[in-house]
Amino acid sequence: MIYFESDYMEGAHPEILRRLMETNLEKHSGYGSDIYCASAKEKIRRAIGSPDADIYFLVGGTQTNQIVIDAMLGACEGIISADTGHIQCHEAGAVESCGHKILPIPHNQGKLPADALRRYLETFFADPNHPHMIYPGMVYISHPTEYGTLYTLDELSALADLCRQYHLPLFLDGARLGYGLMSRGTDVTLRNIAELCDAFYIGGTKVGALCGEAVVFPRGNAPKHFFTLTKQHGALLAKGRLLGIQFDTLFTDDLYFTISRHAIQMADRMRAAFAAKGYEFYISTVTNQIFVVLDAEKLAALEKQVSFSFWEKLADGRTVVRFASSWATTEEDVRALTDLL
Amino acid sequence: MIYFESDYMEGAHPEILRRLMETNLEKHSGYGSDIYCASAKEKIRRAIGSPDADIYFLVGGTQTNQIVIDAMLGACEGIISADTGHIQCHEAGAVESCGHKILPIPHNQGKLPADALRRYLETFFADPNHPHMIYPGMVYISHPTEYGTLYTLDELSALADLCRQYHLPLFLDGARLGYGLMSRGTDVTLRNIAELCDAFYIGGTKVGALCGEAVVFPRGNAPKHFFTLTKQHGALLAKGRLLGIQFDTLFTDDLYFTISRHAIQMADRMRAAFAAKGYEFYISTVTNQIFVVLDAEKLAALEKQVSFSFWEKLADGRTVVRFASSWATTEEDVRALTDLL
Amino acid sequence: MIYFESDYMEGAHPEILRRLMETNLEKHSGYGSDIYCASAKEKIRRAIGSPDADIYFLVGGTQTNQIVIDAMLGACEGIISADTGHIQCHEAGAVESCGHKILPIPHNQGKLPADALRRYLETFFADPNHPHMIYPGMVYISHPTEYGTLYTLDELSALADLCRQYHLPLFLDGARLGYGLMSRGTDVTLRNIAELCDAFYIGGTKVGALCGEAVVFPRGNAPKHFFTLTKQHGALLAKGRLLGIQFDTLFTDDLYFTISRHAIQMADRMRAAFAAKGYEFYISTVTNQIFVVLDAEKLAALEKQVSFSFWEKLADGRTVVRFASSWATTEEDVRALTDLL
Amino acid sequence: MIYFESDYMEGAHPEILRRLMETNLEKHSGYGSDIYCASAKEKIRRAIGSPDADIYFLVGGTQTNQIVIDAMLGACEGIISADTGHIQCHEAGAVESCGHKILPIPHNQGKLPADALRRYLETFFADPNHPHMIYPGMVYISHPTEYGTLYTLDELSALADLCRQYHLPLFLDGARLGYGLMSRGTDVTLRNIAELCDAFYIGGTKVGALCGEAVVFPRGNAPKHFFTLTKQHGALLAKGRLLGIQFDTLFTDDLYFTISRHAIQMADRMRAAFAAKGYEFYISTVTNQIFVVLDAEKLAALEKQVSFSFWEKLADGRTVVRFASSWATTEEDVRALTDLL
Repeated sequence: MIYFESDYMEGAHPEILRRLMETNLEKHSGYGSDIYCASAKEKIRRAIGSPDADIYFLVGGTQTNQIVIDAMLGACEGIISADTGHIQCHEAGAVESCGHKILPIPHNQGKLPADALRRYLETFFADPNHPHMIYPGMVYISHPTEYGTLYTLDELSALADLCRQYHLPLFLDGARLGYGLMSRGTDVTLRNIAELCDAFYIGGTKVGALCGEAVVFPRGNAPKHFFTLTKQHGALLAKGRLLGIQFDTLFTDDLYFTISRHAIQMADRMRAAFAAKGYEFYISTVTNQIFVVLDAEKLAALEKQVSFSFWEKLADGRTVVRFASSWATTEEDVRALTDLL
Repeated sequence: MIYFESDYMEGAHPEILRRLMETNLEKHSGYGSDIYCASAKEKIRRAIGSPDADIYFLVGGTQTNQIVIDAMLGACEGIISADTGHIQCHEAGAVESCGHKILPIPHNQGKLPADALRRYLETFFADPNHPHMIYPGMVYISHPTEYGTLYTLDELSALADLCRQYHLPLFLDGARLGYGLMSRGTDVTLRNIAELCDAFYIGGTKVGALCGEAVVFPRGNAPKHFFTLTKQHGALLAKGRLLGIQFDTLFTDDLYFTISRHAIQMADRMRAAFAAKGYEFYISTVTNQIFVVLDAEKLAALEKQVSFSFWEKLADGRTVVRFASSWATTEEDVRALTDLL
Repeated sequence: MIYFESDYMEGAHPEILRRLMETNLEKHSGYGSDIYCASAKEKIRRAIGSPDADIYFLVGGTQTNQIVIDAMLGACEGIISADTGHIQCHEAGAVESCGHKILPIPHNQGKLPADALRRYLETFFADPNHPHMIYPGMVYISHPTEYGTLYTLDELSALADLCRQYHLPLFLDGARLGYGLMSRGTDVTLRNIAELCDAFYIGGTKVGALCGEAVVFPRGNAPKHFFTLTKQHGALLAKGRLLGIQFDTLFTDDLYFTISRHAIQMADRMRAAFAAKGYEFYISTVTNQIFVVLDAEKLAALEKQVSFSFWEKLADGRTVVRFASSWATTEEDVRALTDLL
Repeated sequence: MIYFESDYMEGAHPEILRRLMETNLEKHSGYGSDIYCASAKEKIRRAIGSPDADIYFLVGGTQTNQIVIDAMLGACEGIISADTGHIQCHEAGAVESCGHKILPIPHNQGKLPADALRRYLETFFADPNHPHMIYPGMVYISHPTEYGTLYTLDELSALADLCRQYHLPLFLDGARLGYGLMSRGTDVTLRNIAELCDAFYIGGTKVGALCGEAVVFPRGNAPKHFFTLTKQHGALLAKGRLLGIQFDTLFTDDLYFTISRHAIQMADRMRAAFAAKGYEFYISTVTNQIFVVLDAEKLAALEKQVSFSFWEKLADGRTVVRFASSWATTEEDVRALTDLL
């Protein structure tokens, strides 16, 4: 069996485990006040080019989305998202459980189109009944999106401009950010993101860590009492070093980027193999996720030898499935898949 | 410097790190569906003598308290706690943030006295205005308590009887459960707890794990949709194996109990040393936490060479401080402290 | 100026004011425990043919929707609604503010189609990822709908059957229920609603009362602590008599139905007048709400002499506006409108 | 039977009903945008001497407390209250249901003592663990208190000074404000309250209205989107005129103060009668509430002829009961009581 089911099937990059081992019996104070958290934050500030950034380490993606959104929305404000956004579809109502409405806008290949956002905002404020409705209070995007697509710098800038015009903070979910940044042809850099967004997170769980996401408020703009809010949400680790050491390792010698690039190289080869064999792509991607349409026969044949994940059933009876590479995907895995196709 | 500030100053028990390393590149499905979670649950079921128990692994203590309480309280119900309870004092309003009121009752040495609970319940239902008030809906205790004290089996049984009489689930916070169970003279066993409580958790973070708490519903009585609720609270790890492997290790060859017993042996020696030197105990404990009263001079002298934690200021100007041992405390640490005193 | 802006532009039916006056200095105990509340409940039980019904009087529609939904949803459950539902569009996130997600389904003329509901439920439970999503927990419909349309008895029965099959309570928002029941050609009776729904409310505010909605749990199935929940939501009036006297009056000598029928007769004449003059209806209704499409010129001309409400802007530049009759609409008002057209 | 059970046993002051009748068939737009709301606000602004005040009309006291507190607290902030505060004791967890913790401080005769508040704040910020706790975010007092007592101007000023020093808004619950302002010997005026508080409400329900409370933000300092927040909480009446007309009437020709003074005169006579007959007062009050201690025999005798309300059981077996006068109490009622004693 070869595994392409997801990008979180293994433990951590070996270098992370090595450093956890090496530092294991050192005594450190708790709750993120240790030297490794401090060092990791400093390295991230350098990587994003924002010396004043406020940075917090949280454990997982849904938790991070929930806390950041809860912290940044005001009373009677909701969060705008593409209707395919992770917060809207696959987070078990985490945002609503904090009292906030999600305001979905139809996606374009998983992305939130700036023109659709503009129309939404114009229509909202033009409606005389809008004081009886939830105000737009923040914009959520993911990069890469849930469909593995990427914003161009132009698209991201257009969204950021619109957000500034309407005084809406822009929040970017970077659960797979490394894979997005290392994809071929993207013109969006980590510094662009730090300049254009008001908050974003650098995903660790899917990019080499056991767990962990680094939340960044790039202009030192963390909401008041954000530390206490993480405690209130049950997100504050007593042994904060677990996150500090992982991110310190990932941001030493560009490890985060190196392993992300590897995953993309593996995905590119997989894409080439699918294309060569005439497989139909459901959506065109350049990141570590590949969506392929299979008929019943192919599906039955493949699933005996490869693990992948179910995405959706098409009206014509065929099935969309997802193959994901990761930092841990080997050339052998890819070769085995190629041979199989 | 020698360190007794808390029981979460180190990483994990080395055996845990060894097994994380050993299994690191195995491919497992996510969200707690891996073989290590399954194995760990089975071992815990045996340890508590409850073959039907529902078990879930969560990341930290505040998170666990919040989710279990949120899952088990009904509309207009609050949770009764000693006024020194962790949920009431040091969890940043995590319970209230989910909409639930805490109903505090004056503690006795950190414990919730059954007779005070009985009076509370009788008074509540006798008050003709009680439909304008939050109903008691659940009882929270911690064992060991926040003051390092332990319930006797009689005390625990009295609380459990009262809870059953009033149809109130009894929930036990076991953040330091191992240390409580291995303390000298305690007559409360893990099986007693599984019999008397409706929910409890076995703390990992403070007893050898990097992170992790095992929630137990001993009679297969997990609330409906509890898995989804953990997701909604941002508590579901993509790499659930991180928790499964840790608890599987802790419940292999009684490691959890062995390392807890070691911490108690260290604490017992520390207690003896304090007593021999005429230090005053703020409260009498048999667990891994020792509360000592220091005058300004002693405090200043000690804090140069030992780390401990501030507890509270007494009216007479003296200070209560806490020394905690843990699975990682060495005989050298204890000898150094003894010499110092 | 003649007024058709809404059905809540006047005070109360004069008979209500007369009885408030008549009973004003009587001394009654508070919070709905007075004799008028008791009498009103008894009359409603007879009117709906449900001698065991639990009935509560609340103040307004959004409040009622919020409390009933909050009381009936379990953890991780959301409420299904047509995407045009009042709770989804015009209640300022009241449902989400209690932590619950709304699960919208595309409407058909303001109604929730049973076949669309069935597809939603089948797709949800077929999706292997559904434990990461909010479960359907309840179904919300309004009758008349926000578009002034009515369910047929067949449509309502199909929804109720489906709800029972999936163990989902069916909740009917009857803010304008009187007008729906008295419309020509409807085959849905108050008794049908009591049989087919698990909760519904009989709107007072828009049908002759100063304020007030009567919530009905037709089989004595009020959620536990529902009284306390109304207090918790700030919905419990100290002077509950204000609601009791109003509903007692409305359900004496069929006043509720008589005044509703009058509103429909007025609306029918208005409809006839619009049709005779060649106005285009945006949607075909038989209730007290009439939606008409106006071009810019007509709009400008009419709004000088008649008040109506803005509904929406069409793509072709024309505007949909709403004319509403009510218990207080007079034959003179209608004649004046007819002359004007 | 004579009735002193509460101050909300009758309907409304007759002048209010007269004006509801008189204006009943006038057509007004909804949601508080009518001319009577505007006029009432203007009269209140004059009465409090704050021309820039933001004023909103809500329906009841618990609702008002809930919404104002929800609007004014920030993330991880709680509200400080005397432990006898209405929000802490008799509002069914309304504040907590919005996610906020109440921080109770021991009362002195129902009042929050400034020195106890100061100690609380100093201790909180001195505790190195305070970032793990809920921050004080606002101060709640009631005037008169739940025990019928009144703050002096000095006491109120001391609280206000402390609040400003710590940047905590001061919120005054004036459910019985009229009775407090008209009590003999008080040196606190409505203008003082408007100067010293950041938010307060003028109670209508207990002072002559059918329902209704006027929330005042005296320096135009209403929280953002406060109108929408009232809608979200289900507190926005479609027929806002019901509240506008009532407050417009109460603040015409000083009616609010005249009827409050009458209630105090009646209470003063009742107090004199109790004193003359040697009854023991539980607490000394000058407002419309009188707390008397009765032994079992007296209690049994009195309750056959007078209605009053149970307050609490004393340790010695005697009972504290409350007699309340109101705007509707007649000289005949008081004479009948006097004769009876």
